[in-house]
Amino acid sequence: VTVAELTEAELIARIQAKLPPAPAWLTVGIGDDAAVVEPERNRLEVLTVDAQVEGIHFDRRFTPPDAIGHRALAVNLSDLAAMGSTPRLALLSLALAPALDATDFEQMIGGVAALALRHRVHVVGGNLTRSSGPLMLDVSVSGSVKRRHVLTRAGAKPGDLVFVTGSIGAAGAGLQMLGASSDARSSCRSRYLYPEPRVATGALLGRNRAASACMDLSDGLADGARQIAAASRVGMVVDADALPIDPDARGWFETRGADPVLEALTCGDDYELLFTVRPQWAGRLRTVQKDTDVPLRKIGFCTRDRAVVLRRGSIETAIPHGYKHFG
Amino acid sequence: VTVAELTEAELIARIQAKLPPAPAWLTVGIGDDAAVVEPERNRLEVLTVDAQVEGIHFDRRFTPPDAIGHRALAVNLSDLAAMGSTPRLALLSLALAPALDATDFEQMIGGVAALALRHRVHVVGGNLTRSSGPLMLDVSVSGSVKRRHVLTRAGAKPGDLVFVTGSIGAAGAGLQMLGASSDARSSCRSRYLYPEPRVATGALLGRNRAASACMDLSDGLADGARQIAAASRVGMVVDADALPIDPDARGWFETRGADPVLEALTCGDDYELLFTVRPQWAGRLRTVQKDTDVPLRKIGFCTRDRAVVLRRGSIETAIPHGYKHFG
Repeated sequence: VTVAELTEAELIARIQAKLPPAPAWLTVGIGDDAAVVEPERNRLEVLTVDAQVEGIHFDRRFTPPDAIGHRALAVNLSDLAAMGSTPRLALLSLALAPALDATDFEQMIGGVAALALRHRVHVVGGNLTRSSGPLMLDVSVSGSVKRRHVLTRAGAKPGDLVFVTGSIGAAGAGLQMLGASSDARSSCRSRYLYPEPRVATGALLGRNRAASACMDLSDGLADGARQIAAASRVGMVVDADALPIDPDARGWFETRGADPVLEALTCGDDYELLFTVRPQWAGRLRTVQKDTDVPLRKIGFCTRDRAVVLRRGSIETAIPHGYKHFG
Repeated sequence: VTVAELTEAELIARIQAKLPPAPAWLTVGIGDDAAVVEPERNRLEVLTVDAQVEGIHFDRRFTPPDAIGHRALAVNLSDLAAMGSTPRLALLSLALAPALDATDFEQMIGGVAALALRHRVHVVGGNLTRSSGPLMLDVSVSGSVKRRHVLTRAGAKPGDLVFVTGSIGAAGAGLQMLGASSDARSSCRSRYLYPEPRVATGALLGRNRAASACMDLSDGLADGARQIAAASRVGMVVDADALPIDPDARGWFETRGADPVLEALTCGDDYELLFTVRPQWAGRLRTVQKDTDVPLRKIGFCTRDRAVVLRRGSIETAIPHGYKHFG
């Protein structure tokens, strides 16, 4: 059965069947012209949207439908985490080829729904449209945060220390493994397919006012370092030896003759958080670390000089540029 | 110059250049991981998303770029109006072919920005992605409304009167004229290309508590009547003679040998509001009509019997079904 054989109402019913009961703050849910929600008291609202396009952001040959759904929501939750906010709701806009298998459709929705449930995010509405083109998932999310807990990219100062959560390089290596149909046993594939957005850690960094700037690593650490530096008008020194490169990823890059440091810095899809911390906030950061299992690793510091450099032993080079042109 | 020759940062800069200064309630705007906004006090928030896909929702052969942008926002503002809410902000997610002309891109954004400005809607963020497929604009919007002013589809009762704003059929006729490259002089084309969402009228209906149910006519009046009837668990009688069919559209349909009533009922793209009114609320409705130039036309009434029928003279027939299958 393809989605073309179902009515829009039937497709929406299959989505609703995967969603938990509506929360009390949802006044009007799916099925009207728009959703109506009660804002959270004394909180600012944080909004973002991100699209996943077949052939650009995922390859259906090795990305199962539930992973497509998972990733479409995960990238957005990662953005909310980077602002120090707690996610609350999502809108799901899907462009589907009529020939899409209805079971694949349901598994894709299942991937969204499972991640949403774990983070108590409610899907309050959305849109379904046919498309002659690639499968496309556009997810908009909203989260909430207290005003004094907002994290932006712009708050770093010279002397601030630079940290990253978790590990880097695994998703990039996993994507390469999947593309090469490698039979290497490794958790890297699932790091690419089912990234875990750092929702709790982002909220903890905000709530404890432990970070002076923060962003997520969707486009790689090199890009993240440049973005925070530019927004904060500082420079940055990143210590290559301190980078928490995933061991499997390091091995994979090395056997392929690539430099693991450069690969791990420039590959995207690591939904980790890059953040800066004032030296005198070490205690706040310890509080955060006590409440999360996610390792928080110091990898560098901010400088008055505006260059963003990678230090390898005694050699400093400009940190590599990520992807540049739109086309 | 195509968009492929520009960087993402350059494209974003061209968008920002078309936007007015940030409003005071926008704490963090374009350029961070997400936007941060201050909710409006004592209001509920209304959220919706809608996509416009080339080849499905618009044909680039006769839809100029600024109309593509205009329509992508207009359909969403229409949904917010149908809930009785006042629009506030939008997120813009665009999937662009690398070969898209940069001037077309700017005109498309200009179409969004001009309509946004007129309705004091601020574009607070968005997403840009390449796509191998059709041009696609996904717009998410948020509006605000007082709890007791929310309009849904579900509040109609037997005996309520049925109204429609403005006129119907013009957009459908305009689309046919454009597709047929007709040289008929008519305002129908611009009704299709630049629909005016009934933003002020929707808010007035909500604020005056003048409507018991409301929805917008994106899929045609026949579909709208069925949707309100189903959600409210009532039936409806629509009087064919009372329908405010646009005179140009009527003429166009007649010369093509089509039934103007059936065409006007089933063609979509009329972003008018269909709403129901308790008979004893006539005074409230007069108050609304005093504050808007948009005609509010009585076209029928709700019944206990659940059938949704079209009355033509003494003959009653089931109201036609709109578009059914997804594929």
